[in-house]
Amino acid sequence: MPQNPDAFTRLINALKILPNVGPKSAQRMAYQLLQHSRSGAQELAEALQHALKQVHHCTRCNTFCEGGLCDICADQNRDPRRLMIVHMPADVSGMEAANCHDGLYFVLMGQVNPAQGMDLSHIALDKLVERLQNSEVEEIIIATNFTAEGDATAYVLSELFKNLPYKVSRLARGIPLGGELEYVDAGTLAQAVYERKMLKE
Amino acid sequence: MPQNPDAFTRLINALKILPNVGPKSAQRMAYQLLQHSRSGAQELAEALQHALKQVHHCTRCNTFCEGGLCDICADQNRDPRRLMIVHMPADVSGMEAANCHDGLYFVLMGQVNPAQGMDLSHIALDKLVERLQNSEVEEIIIATNFTAEGDATAYVLSELFKNLPYKVSRLARGIPLGGELEYVDAGTLAQAVYERKMLKE
Ligand SMILES: [Zn+2]
Ligand SMILES: [Zn+2]
Repeated sequence: MPQNPDAFTRLINALKILPNVGPKSAQRMAYQLLQHSRSGAQELAEALQHALKQVHHCTRCNTFCEGGLCDICADQNRDPRRLMIVHMPADVSGMEAANCHDGLYFVLMGQVNPAQGMDLSHIALDKLVERLQNSEVEEIIIATNFTAEGDATAYVLSELFKNLPYKVSRLARGIPLGGELEYVDAGTLAQAVYERKMLKE
Repeated sequence: MPQNPDAFTRLINALKILPNVGPKSAQRMAYQLLQHSRSGAQELAEALQHALKQVHHCTRCNTFCEGGLCDICADQNRDPRRLMIVHMPADVSGMEAANCHDGLYFVLMGQVNPAQGMDLSHIALDKLVERLQNSEVEEIIIATNFTAEGDATAYVLSELFKNLPYKVSRLARGIPLGGELEYVDAGTLAQAVYERKMLKE
């Protein structure tokens, strides 16, 4: 497409890195940014640079965080005996909005993909094991998605905890089958926490 | 949401400038970029900065372009007697892919919105009038969308050309009603050009 200058084509290609953005959407986004949202485009560029530089992982729960500890891990009012394990930061946001968990979190920052041979390198298992050492944790709530990946991840976690002295539960299947946590409303999330199914006492 | 650090929240907000990206998508994009596509995020930031600096408007056809003239306007083999008027750069790409127009283009970089009082400030009418002065243009092909905005834009253009010495046509309505050019396949696009309806001889 010769009428696309290099810098424009480069922007289109760069936008395709975003999830669910194909060539057509990327072209439309690039047009929108350059023609109608130049200040927004500038802010996006700066926000990306800033986030790449500033955002690290909480040393305790592994979520995104700017200092050493995130706000939740640093909060003395949270109950350190209950640890909820989730896939990604958006799931923590959802749980907090549902206001149904007063314990702490651990964020795996990934899921196990059963279609790709149950590769465990995408989830922060080592960091989780380290987190549990000499901790006050008594109960672990597995809050992974109810999808093939979420089920596989829950299976890996339940195997990991099998011979360890924790109560282990998983969210109640009040969440719609195939549903992902970040698209579930607060009420349904809360219900699923209250009715969580014990896997091991 | 206290667990979102400032730089992460800022990135989420910045992503919401993109078309069709709401809070949930933005959160997912930010997670994807920082956790799984850091080099892609870096490239996106740089591509944005580069495009904001380098991409200007072609002095002749008004499309995005890095130098003074875009490749199509600079091409001596294009027929300067036929000028096709489109909404945005993606429409030029689509036409070129359909390989059905050997003339030149003019890109309005906007549409008239009939729901907002037919405000003409969003389309480059002044630049179009300037483009036509002392030009070799004999025929004008209006290739706006077949939507309310595209129809309103075509109406404004046909009024503009009413007393001017050009043949004026609009794309044949082979394009599905309500359809936008960028989502139409090349064959349908070509058909619509070949069967264009004369508005004025
Ligand atoms: Zn933390
Ligand atoms: Zn041009």
